[in-house]
Amino acid sequence: MSVQQYVKDLAISAKNASKLVANSPVSVRNAALEAIAGTIQSQRQSLLDANTMDLSAAHDTGLDSALIDRLELTETRVDGMLESLAIVQALPDPIGGIEGLRSMESGIQVGKMRVPLGLIGIIYESRPNVTIDAASLCLKSGNAVLLRGGSEALRSNLVLASCIQAGLEAAGLPAQAVQVLDTTDREGVSAMVKLSGIVDMVVPRGGKGLIERVASDATVPVLKHLDGICHLYIHSDADPAMAIELAVNAKTHRYGTCNTMESLLIDSECAALLPELARPLLEKGVVLRGCEQTCVWLGDDCTLASEEDWSTEYLAPILSIKVVEDFDAAVDHIARFGSGHTDGIVTQCHSSAMQFLRAVDSSSVMVNASTRFADGYEYGLGAEIGISTDKIHARGPVGLEGLTSQKYVVLGNGHIRT
Amino acid sequence: MSVQQYVKDLAISAKNASKLVANSPVSVRNAALEAIAGTIQSQRQSLLDANTMDLSAAHDTGLDSALIDRLELTETRVDGMLESLAIVQALPDPIGGIEGLRSMESGIQVGKMRVPLGLIGIIYESRPNVTIDAASLCLKSGNAVLLRGGSEALRSNLVLASCIQAGLEAAGLPAQAVQVLDTTDREGVSAMVKLSGIVDMVVPRGGKGLIERVASDATVPVLKHLDGICHLYIHSDADPAMAIELAVNAKTHRYGTCNTMESLLIDSECAALLPELARPLLEKGVVLRGCEQTCVWLGDDCTLASEEDWSTEYLAPILSIKVVEDFDAAVDHIARFGSGHTDGIVTQCHSSAMQFLRAVDSSSVMVNASTRFADGYEYGLGAEIGISTDKIHARGPVGLEGLTSQKYVVLGNGHIRT
Repeated sequence: MSVQQYVKDLAISAKNASKLVANSPVSVRNAALEAIAGTIQSQRQSLLDANTMDLSAAHDTGLDSALIDRLELTETRVDGMLESLAIVQALPDPIGGIEGLRSMESGIQVGKMRVPLGLIGIIYESRPNVTIDAASLCLKSGNAVLLRGGSEALRSNLVLASCIQAGLEAAGLPAQAVQVLDTTDREGVSAMVKLSGIVDMVVPRGGKGLIERVASDATVPVLKHLDGICHLYIHSDADPAMAIELAVNAKTHRYGTCNTMESLLIDSECAALLPELARPLLEKGVVLRGCEQTCVWLGDDCTLASEEDWSTEYLAPILSIKVVEDFDAAVDHIARFGSGHTDGIVTQCHSSAMQFLRAVDSSSVMVNASTRFADGYEYGLGAEIGISTDKIHARGPVGLEGLTSQKYVVLGNGHIRT
Repeated sequence: MSVQQYVKDLAISAKNASKLVANSPVSVRNAALEAIAGTIQSQRQSLLDANTMDLSAAHDTGLDSALIDRLELTETRVDGMLESLAIVQALPDPIGGIEGLRSMESGIQVGKMRVPLGLIGIIYESRPNVTIDAASLCLKSGNAVLLRGGSEALRSNLVLASCIQAGLEAAGLPAQAVQVLDTTDREGVSAMVKLSGIVDMVVPRGGKGLIERVASDATVPVLKHLDGICHLYIHSDADPAMAIELAVNAKTHRYGTCNTMESLLIDSECAALLPELARPLLEKGVVLRGCEQTCVWLGDDCTLASEEDWSTEYLAPILSIKVVEDFDAAVDHIARFGSGHTDGIVTQCHSSAMQFLRAVDSSSVMVNASTRFADGYEYGLGAEIGISTDKIHARGPVGLEGLTSQKYVVLGNGHIRT
């Protein structure tokens, strides 16, 4: 059987199973999540053993150390999976309720019911915990899911898949609702993203290369973000101590995440703050690349940024810094070089804060907060299936709601249109 | 200049103008809608003259009479445009407000702000009033719009465009925010739907051929519905008189609309109702095509339906009728043959009604109401930019909200992530 046919057959069986998940009461979906946690607990050793084999194969093929770190399952990380299942189980049912039912002139009542999308495809790399996060969010929202993890994690993911399927069956749901692709063939991804009418949405999670490939191949809708070129703009009315603390946190809390600040904009009126601001960053080993004015203020602590720096997501201890003329120049810079992910302002001026919220067209816009907060857990979504910088459908960190659609519900009592 | 370059230039100027519309207060957007109505009123005679020329050219080229009817502007239809502008003006501002602001464990507050999509492309046929409906909804929701009407309506649409642009300028908004493509070249449509990154969404309105062509060419998101194969299912617990009245209204109120019932399903337990149900339909000249059982009940009043009938949108005085075994068979039939547009149940049984609402996966699901209610005006949306049967982004009749996106708003007071 070809890879295309294998993926299609798997998708069709998952899609059929999705209808049973969609129509199941939340008590059954929650029971499945609890049973999955129970199975993982009882299969803990087989899971760790499979992961050890994945790790050893990864070492042999010379996988880079960052990827190996993400691949590794420790006791703590398995506990994290169980906790994550419990968090999703505790979230309210996102589907089936009818919202905003209102009476119309004609006498009919019109409202909206939130419903599952159907079958979600997730394409991801390394981290086996994505298998559990994705499966739990999809099941809770009444969807089926097709999981395609990285080849380096296949043994771990297959053990997790068997735990998930056992949990589903224990709760009386079809095991086919969660499928892990048992192939490392790249064609599997291409086949999955072209199954229009069967797969309802695809979420690629991983490096920019993977996401670009999926987006250009796909005929089904893709929920994605390509870059996280996040800005913090220090406004002329910023509290200096707050500005420094936020900039340091946004840049140095973690270097490799998409919500890390990559460019700092500072208003010309408070550019004198630059030396004090640079000190803690330099102490943490951050390399600074500034505009001409920034270089005047920072001297040898800074090198001149090239035009390319303004549109680079470093994912590393490097920061570009630009002195901007005023508020409008900051907003223009973000519109031109930003990636629409997360951008913040530091200011004590209420009207500038409100104006920034409106004028900056990014999936998260912040006032006096670290860009690092742009995250499903921090936003109270429980877990996150991904982050979207597109404007269609879901935007920003995507939890349960982004895995649903709404339909209109009309209640009449024999009403006809005249 | 090539058509591609012309459309791209027009789109870029509209996209630039969209930023000013997006950031304008609702008072300014409302003033523009009022000024547009004023300009149409003062240009009424030029508009009717231009329409007369379109009509005369349409007669010469032998355009079919249904299209000519839709093309014609009468005094009443111009009044309808003015009324529609007033209705959209009276709707609350859909953008800029922050919803659901909640405090998180970390101390930050997180909410969502509704924002415009940016630049919308509308592709439509014949009816010049779509020019006004589309422009008013897009402007009210803070978007710019590129309008590509049918070649047969070009003269009427260009007069309307000049009225709209004069109204925009009178309110201090850029005239470029609403553009009517001054070309009848089909390449103009292909060029528009491939402007990813400039055009944010395209809405094709018209025949299935047009919509299929747009959907297959487009690289930008498309909001669309292809078919309206709407069902009414008469449940065993239906009130017979209500069932007959709803069936007659759903089929005969208008034959050519997408929310017209095309297939009637009747529960085997109440199939004896068929002769009484058929009478008023036959009196109105509706041709009946039934399953074998239906033909037994109706005799010469009915011909045997072919398999193809169950998936045909007649848009004509023809109705397919099927006797279904029970509730589940009705739901299965709708899932298999329906187009996900609008489907209803007639029943006095509350639990069957609730089960139907959940189990049928269509953009509108109805209980004891005519399918003809699936409409933006009837749902209280003011006007409608189109109907979507897709599950991603907007679904069902789409008004202002479907022309917007949401972004996360985070308010802190120096909060950092630890």
